[in-house]
Amino acid sequence: MRFGLFGSATARHGGPDVDSGRGYKQFVEYNVEAEALGYHSTFLVEHHFTGFGQVSASLSLLTWVAAKTKSLRLGTAVLVLPWHNPVLIAEQAATIDLLSGGRLDFGVGKGYRHNEFAGFCVPMAEAEARFCESLDVIVKSWTSKQRFSHHGKYWHFEDIIVEPPTAQKPHPPMWMGAGSPDSIRQVAERGYGLLLDQFASFETVAERVSIFKSEIEKRGRVFNPMDVGVARAFYVAKDEADKEAALERRLEAQRRLTAISSAPDGSKSKASIMAYSDTREASEESALYGTPDEIAQKLEKLRRLGVEYVLLNGGGPTHDSLRRFARELMPAFGEGARMRVVG
Amino acid sequence: MRFGLFGSATARHGGPDVDSGRGYKQFVEYNVEAEALGYHSTFLVEHHFTGFGQVSASLSLLTWVAAKTKSLRLGTAVLVLPWHNPVLIAEQAATIDLLSGGRLDFGVGKGYRHNEFAGFCVPMAEAEARFCESLDVIVKSWTSKQRFSHHGKYWHFEDIIVEPPTAQKPHPPMWMGAGSPDSIRQVAERGYGLLLDQFASFETVAERVSIFKSEIEKRGRVFNPMDVGVARAFYVAKDEADKEAALERRLEAQRRLTAISSAPDGSKSKASIMAYSDTREASEESALYGTPDEIAQKLEKLRRLGVEYVLLNGGGPTHDSLRRFARELMPAFGEGARMRVVG
Repeated sequence: MRFGLFGSATARHGGPDVDSGRGYKQFVEYNVEAEALGYHSTFLVEHHFTGFGQVSASLSLLTWVAAKTKSLRLGTAVLVLPWHNPVLIAEQAATIDLLSGGRLDFGVGKGYRHNEFAGFCVPMAEAEARFCESLDVIVKSWTSKQRFSHHGKYWHFEDIIVEPPTAQKPHPPMWMGAGSPDSIRQVAERGYGLLLDQFASFETVAERVSIFKSEIEKRGRVFNPMDVGVARAFYVAKDEADKEAALERRLEAQRRLTAISSAPDGSKSKASIMAYSDTREASEESALYGTPDEIAQKLEKLRRLGVEYVLLNGGGPTHDSLRRFARELMPAFGEGARMRVVG
Repeated sequence: MRFGLFGSATARHGGPDVDSGRGYKQFVEYNVEAEALGYHSTFLVEHHFTGFGQVSASLSLLTWVAAKTKSLRLGTAVLVLPWHNPVLIAEQAATIDLLSGGRLDFGVGKGYRHNEFAGFCVPMAEAEARFCESLDVIVKSWTSKQRFSHHGKYWHFEDIIVEPPTAQKPHPPMWMGAGSPDSIRQVAERGYGLLLDQFASFETVAERVSIFKSEIEKRGRVFNPMDVGVARAFYVAKDEADKEAALERRLEAQRRLTAISSAPDGSKSKASIMAYSDTREASEESALYGTPDEIAQKLEKLRRLGVEYVLLNGGGPTHDSLRRFARELMPAFGEGARMRVVG
């Protein structure tokens, strides 16, 4: 299996004695160590206006991580296209791709949180149309060798050529978050990689992988399990009490996410990423929390379900879990392990 | 005197055998060496749609430079606000400021090139109003501890709090490009640093510094010459023929700039940055081209005219000029020299 990271960083507001940059620096160190331990990639979220210091300028933070690493793939999970001028985002993405020697994985999405649409004064009903228009402009910006114009519903550009060029050709690999059968079909249709969220149960993950596989094969293409990145919360616990405490922290974070994604009338976001059960049992079932043996059993199960690429979310820069996972689980499950079996 | 850099990088389009990233990497190395040689800052332009590989995502490239340096100030000269969503740019700028430990110099401008306004489909007539509205939102994004809303002519935001926080408080130092007396007055009124372009003659520079100084003093503040960054082309020549060739290259670049900034009917941009004489004599007079002795005379003259902070533009990553300037001119003119005199 292939293991990457999925997550965010926190920059706290505070008085003159608070080092707001500490959380960002820890995140960078965490990624530098992950690369050394053999992790394949890091996927970074984009969020706005939470008030608790989330990452907003994902490509900026990722550019810093890129400058401090050599081989780590640099992913966005996801850039929310409805907020961005597509040409400016194409330029920023090309710049990091170029500087990093072609390590960008360009993950995109439509957004699902009420507070972000409200903050940007973008109607949630426009998300799909804005997403599609932006994506067209971005891909054209990267691939057109000629000047072009675009006059769409939301964006206008006249006689432009977009630079710098990307390092990867024709452009960086594209990834898209999806959950519903219809969205998964769109990802297959576009030929992108599929990002699956960290909250869905193993069974739901299996269904989604299976839909994606059949949609790929229906189109006469060969399904590659490495084109599905499955986010999973992970925590290598010292003992049962340590695991229980970690699960409690995770439930709290899930509840906070639900609250922030909901409309003011209390109605929950309808996005499939929010369609999980938030009971203690469901939370434990979906997550890779426990002793190395417990996690090994879950990885076995994921592999049986067709999952080969797991994006681990430690809920913060938890170096201890990162190291124990690398040392105690990668030897048996990582790509090196498989190569040894094959060889 | 204080010496920084001013300039751009080039990423060429090309076939599979062209390393498009080479120009960006050279630019990064140039800045890393500049820091080691004692240069104070680097100021990077933002441009779009030229077709010859200019820097577009300035904050992205600057973030990479920031990750590779320790003390170099990181400037934009300038971010053209009419192209950007002010909240997204505030987030990106705060991210580099935070990660770099507070090294961002935030230079802003209204834009002056016809091809960029046309490409973004933004009427040039809106530049001033867009600039002012964006600047208000950016400063509020950085400084407001409370959620706020903004409903302006061009941008709408509802109940937002913008993160991450900047490292510098209340926000990074602001710089503004200006040339006309009225624009210079606005810079003084706002309390920003003043960026002066590389094409104006020494006499014009002196007039502008003098207007800025008197506008500052009129407001009861103390004028600090380090708040005026004067861009100057520089080239430490081996001999007369070498200098002549460099001047020819510069004239060519100036003509290309004039062409790209002009409207299709051939009318020149009215921006004061474009109001220079492009004769061979004027070009030589405004630039620091020549032997170390010739450049020393020009620095003496600039200092007599009230200039203490020079932003050197080598027209590309010319390490040889960078080193010779540092070794042969900084000992007599740099900040260390002055400290030694005082001490």
